[in-house]
Amino acid sequence: MKNTFGNNLSLTLFGESHGEEIGCVLDGLTPGMVVSQESIAFALSQRRPSGAYSTGRQEQDPFRIVSGCINGRATGTPLCITIPNTAQRSSDYAKASSVRPGHADFAAQMKYRGFQDVRGGGHFSGRITAPIVAAGAILRDALAQKGIHMGTHIKQLAGINDRPFADSAADIAVLETAAFPVLDGTVEEKMKAAILSAKAEGDSVGGILETCVTGMPAGVGEPWFDALEGMLAHGLFSVPAVKGVEFGDGFAMATMRGSQANDSFYYDENGNVRTRTNHNGGINGGITNGMPLTFSAVIKPTPTISMEQETVDISTGKDTVLASRGRHDPCIVHRARIVVDSIAALVLCDALMGRFGTDFFAPEES
Amino acid sequence: MKNTFGNNLSLTLFGESHGEEIGCVLDGLTPGMVVSQESIAFALSQRRPSGAYSTGRQEQDPFRIVSGCINGRATGTPLCITIPNTAQRSSDYAKASSVRPGHADFAAQMKYRGFQDVRGGGHFSGRITAPIVAAGAILRDALAQKGIHMGTHIKQLAGINDRPFADSAADIAVLETAAFPVLDGTVEEKMKAAILSAKAEGDSVGGILETCVTGMPAGVGEPWFDALEGMLAHGLFSVPAVKGVEFGDGFAMATMRGSQANDSFYYDENGNVRTRTNHNGGINGGITNGMPLTFSAVIKPTPTISMEQETVDISTGKDTVLASRGRHDPCIVHRARIVVDSIAALVLCDALMGRFGTDFFAPEES
Amino acid sequence: MKNTFGNNLSLTLFGESHGEEIGCVLDGLTPGMVVSQESIAFALSQRRPSGAYSTGRQEQDPFRIVSGCINGRATGTPLCITIPNTAQRSSDYAKASSVRPGHADFAAQMKYRGFQDVRGGGHFSGRITAPIVAAGAILRDALAQKGIHMGTHIKQLAGINDRPFADSAADIAVLETAAFPVLDGTVEEKMKAAILSAKAEGDSVGGILETCVTGMPAGVGEPWFDALEGMLAHGLFSVPAVKGVEFGDGFAMATMRGSQANDSFYYDENGNVRTRTNHNGGINGGITNGMPLTFSAVIKPTPTISMEQETVDISTGKDTVLASRGRHDPCIVHRARIVVDSIAALVLCDALMGRFGTDFFAPEES
Amino acid sequence: MKNTFGNNLSLTLFGESHGEEIGCVLDGLTPGMVVSQESIAFALSQRRPSGAYSTGRQEQDPFRIVSGCINGRATGTPLCITIPNTAQRSSDYAKASSVRPGHADFAAQMKYRGFQDVRGGGHFSGRITAPIVAAGAILRDALAQKGIHMGTHIKQLAGINDRPFADSAADIAVLETAAFPVLDGTVEEKMKAAILSAKAEGDSVGGILETCVTGMPAGVGEPWFDALEGMLAHGLFSVPAVKGVEFGDGFAMATMRGSQANDSFYYDENGNVRTRTNHNGGINGGITNGMPLTFSAVIKPTPTISMEQETVDISTGKDTVLASRGRHDPCIVHRARIVVDSIAALVLCDALMGRFGTDFFAPEES
Repeated sequence: MKNTFGNNLSLTLFGESHGEEIGCVLDGLTPGMVVSQESIAFALSQRRPSGAYSTGRQEQDPFRIVSGCINGRATGTPLCITIPNTAQRSSDYAKASSVRPGHADFAAQMKYRGFQDVRGGGHFSGRITAPIVAAGAILRDALAQKGIHMGTHIKQLAGINDRPFADSAADIAVLETAAFPVLDGTVEEKMKAAILSAKAEGDSVGGILETCVTGMPAGVGEPWFDALEGMLAHGLFSVPAVKGVEFGDGFAMATMRGSQANDSFYYDENGNVRTRTNHNGGINGGITNGMPLTFSAVIKPTPTISMEQETVDISTGKDTVLASRGRHDPCIVHRARIVVDSIAALVLCDALMGRFGTDFFAPEES
Repeated sequence: MKNTFGNNLSLTLFGESHGEEIGCVLDGLTPGMVVSQESIAFALSQRRPSGAYSTGRQEQDPFRIVSGCINGRATGTPLCITIPNTAQRSSDYAKASSVRPGHADFAAQMKYRGFQDVRGGGHFSGRITAPIVAAGAILRDALAQKGIHMGTHIKQLAGINDRPFADSAADIAVLETAAFPVLDGTVEEKMKAAILSAKAEGDSVGGILETCVTGMPAGVGEPWFDALEGMLAHGLFSVPAVKGVEFGDGFAMATMRGSQANDSFYYDENGNVRTRTNHNGGINGGITNGMPLTFSAVIKPTPTISMEQETVDISTGKDTVLASRGRHDPCIVHRARIVVDSIAALVLCDALMGRFGTDFFAPEES
Repeated sequence: MKNTFGNNLSLTLFGESHGEEIGCVLDGLTPGMVVSQESIAFALSQRRPSGAYSTGRQEQDPFRIVSGCINGRATGTPLCITIPNTAQRSSDYAKASSVRPGHADFAAQMKYRGFQDVRGGGHFSGRITAPIVAAGAILRDALAQKGIHMGTHIKQLAGINDRPFADSAADIAVLETAAFPVLDGTVEEKMKAAILSAKAEGDSVGGILETCVTGMPAGVGEPWFDALEGMLAHGLFSVPAVKGVEFGDGFAMATMRGSQANDSFYYDENGNVRTRTNHNGGINGGITNGMPLTFSAVIKPTPTISMEQETVDISTGKDTVLASRGRHDPCIVHRARIVVDSIAALVLCDALMGRFGTDFFAPEES
Repeated sequence: MKNTFGNNLSLTLFGESHGEEIGCVLDGLTPGMVVSQESIAFALSQRRPSGAYSTGRQEQDPFRIVSGCINGRATGTPLCITIPNTAQRSSDYAKASSVRPGHADFAAQMKYRGFQDVRGGGHFSGRITAPIVAAGAILRDALAQKGIHMGTHIKQLAGINDRPFADSAADIAVLETAAFPVLDGTVEEKMKAAILSAKAEGDSVGGILETCVTGMPAGVGEPWFDALEGMLAHGLFSVPAVKGVEFGDGFAMATMRGSQANDSFYYDENGNVRTRTNHNGGINGGITNGMPLTFSAVIKPTPTISMEQETVDISTGKDTVLASRGRHDPCIVHRARIVVDSIAALVLCDALMGRFGTDFFAPEES
């Protein structure tokens, strides 16, 4: 199930950077779930490169819902979305030669033995995240209908820190429409300057994305292998450039004492069990405890840079030097946030439907 | 597939802390794979608490191979291992009352609605890692026969750092038999002192485990959802107390430039492609590149502490104060390392058998 | 997932005929589901050989619930059941030599390359159905609590036909406790005589089992790959000796016209949609339509017979003649019916929990 | 994984009868496998209705390979194929009203609660088999490269019998190009006459398809749940109208004695183990034994008929009478044979790749 992920709700990906179309199949939707073209278009716009701190190439994403949707409602059978590649299709078959450091080129050559599509990264291209984002838009709308909201901000970029989540609901609302997802408006220009500075040197920068999900009911997830952390991490590591995932305080817990890391429970004024802190990110023993889910993912600096790099040419069998020409992203952190949200939405919807049944997201009027 | 993990090779867990037996079923072994009682016993001894810096309870783990093995060889059909619980079995059914902060108690109550076994943590107990370790011993032996070796050290404990991996082969050999898994012998006593210090205060400490795997062939793993990083993380988050997983330089890549994070390729003297650095931890695009796999997992401080903690009593519906009596681990970092190795072995064997077939681990004489 | 079956509810098998214990892990039960030792014991008694028309070996099945159950209730975590093998354990490792016609011996040798357990059929032994039956007893009780009842009768044995299902509820009630599962009491002695006649000649007989399930809600199952027929057939073909499965009128539909095979819908006096006939066995397009599920499975004649048979000796590489000595079943049709019921219960519970959530079988008092 | 099937090689379906496109994603192909447009086009032509004994509607199937293929070779990443629906697209959303007897209409209404696409059968339409056939063409070519050949004939249609398989290789070669798949040329006209006769009366006929697969290596499959019979049956029941599946002599074994049903082994002149008969259809204990695989599937008579039928109108809640107008198939048996072949190819390729690794179908020159 290499390119299919999920149990009760599953997503299957297909496509290559220079193919005719890329797309996905989202299977297991509750019949009647709203499918909003506006939500999909808006989510795709949040993934799209924009301005000087992204690649110069401007792509529209005129997606097409091929199946599984009638009159704006999911039928419940597989929903296929495709997005055309407007880039020129080269008819010739390019062979891998100089493998790009930090990229999948060499690993792919060892796995696919030369038959892989190498044009523009082929199936490894970040473009394949566009269908993920399209699917995610539908799922995030469904979660919102159930009072489950999520938002992702740039916790850190090139060493510059955003402020942490404070008022989760308000912060998430801000992120929902933010073009550049930060909570502290004063850091946006610093981060953008850092991106441009790296770009000017033919280099790139990375960062950390932090996500907060409110409204998840307690009791969702599994002990051991299908721990919600394990399922979320499984999905998040499919986002290109993610090299680490942590929940709650994550790696910072290494230097905490148990008395500091434990979250004390109490009854709130409505008789609900809450914790006074949320170091554990809303998950204990693999299962939600009703507090907001919080997790972070590190996005490594974009591997494609225009500086010269040593590498090998696998067609000649010799060492060589590579300098990537053309447009590329000096930073993908801000573009990746909506991909992270989308993957998280997939995992959470799948877990909720497993727990509460396939009609969990049924519209109330039906 | 809540307690079953793996595709071509799968592990199913069962048991509770105070049940009669705990165990696992390992399905999909290559017929003829060596099953060494000594390896299993030794691995279990590495998980066992020992000395003052662990729980005072000394358990033997007289495991039993119930099926799937004849004359020290895997038959290829399901191999079931059970381990008796020597602890007294309480015949009475205990109801959850004061839920322990940092534990699954409350989340489990919300999921299992009061029917869960709460004695000693029930199915959430760290004891369930013993069958994982028993299964892992078989798999690590199989990997070693194929020239794939792994070792995990305590990278950091209570803020005290071990030295990084240097000569991978030598370091892994040291870790294989180390009672306390550190590479720099001088930090062992400091770490132990930190554990005892926390213990004296009724508190606990956490840390970071770092793993290195040598000998993995290039070309194993998948792009997107079944990225090797995603599969490993999925498994590693099932290890109790793991709250973060990173590959290669992981979160440190957030502050690197692309030119620093990219690993340059070159041809070595044998004509093999290698990278000069290994910031990416041996995986590009979800697929092995032939360099050592490196990853780290943070182990949060043991949640069970004897200091007083605020919490709720879900049987009375009131806030309360809890102080755990009896023996508990002030630190589980050193005990968790063999669990991490075992889970990693499961994921790697599964990926290798998927790639090369179910006879991949066939003994050479056969 | 070779020996694990099911999505939201799964069953994992382990064990060999001459091993110490055989067993299973049933994972995904609704917390609080009743686990009745009496039901399990009774179901096992229905599988057990009895009298002259079975193998002479009398086995008790003193099963043990190892995990996942407290005070007669499922905890919701993996429920492991083991059953000891009381047969003498041979310590020596037997090599496959004369492969039995109609058995898995030769196919197993090609798959397991000589490492398989050949004693008493090893993992291929019909004894492994005992844990399936134990698990099935729990699941059939849960279905009954939801008003879903099932029964299987011997539709045909050695060419002798039982009468078809008539009053489903009454017929199922009769089968529930029948020692020899036929609806027309007058055929029992004829069938037993046919078994004894074959036995006297050192031969064996087969037959057809037909199952009826009442009370299944409409709307369960999937179009295409996870059609309820496909899921049930997948499970049923794991019952040893099953060589065919059909739903409703099955193969007889080959000679029907559409006008005969279609089941007309009508509104009954309570306003429920029903069909006047049930040629389709309660399933249309892979999904239940609310009518009783009906399906049949053919059980081939027991392959182990005492008559001389030509075969090969794979240790010598020569043709040989084989005559099985000792006790064996001249017929397993009557013993297999409870295995069929158990597998069907597993598939139906899994489908219902997928559709309605993991709490579907929650006890009403909780 | 409702519309996705397979483990190491998987197929995902999407689309509806009146949607813009239908299609599938085939994931897990060996890099370098030949993808022949001619083979796909020819296979689709074998599924296509033709002449008076099919529906009068003539559809071309101008399929498009959207991803996963370059220069006629599989890249090894997901191969997506789409086929446009040339039928008029109704923009209006039709509500289910009179549910057709024998069809999924009512069951779908209960599952999808009115949100399903009902135009032309929607996702339940037999048209969705076209992408299965396209994927199957690639897989059957790959099997043939490995010396594994398959063919399906109409064993019985409207009570008229074809002769059984005799010389498997020759018979399969004949079926490969046969427009109407029978082995005995003299029955073709009789069967066609039976179809036309039913058509003239506004009725339809069914039949039985029998498949033979030669060249499968011994030792492929699993005991218990992933028995090759179970996997094949799981897939075959997804073919619309299949209501029964049997292997080897199948249901006929009910009246055989063990001495008749067992297949005697012997060494052939090349020292290979063979059986003198093949009552078990090449599978023992769920695992191939090296003999040809044989299985049959019953295809019920097409449920859409133009005769008047009683049914219910679920929009009015009243009984009604339905007479389908327009073009429909009086028989789909002959068209279904290539679907059966395709599903079988998927299951066999998946099993072979699981056993021998993902490069099993690597082209020899690479």
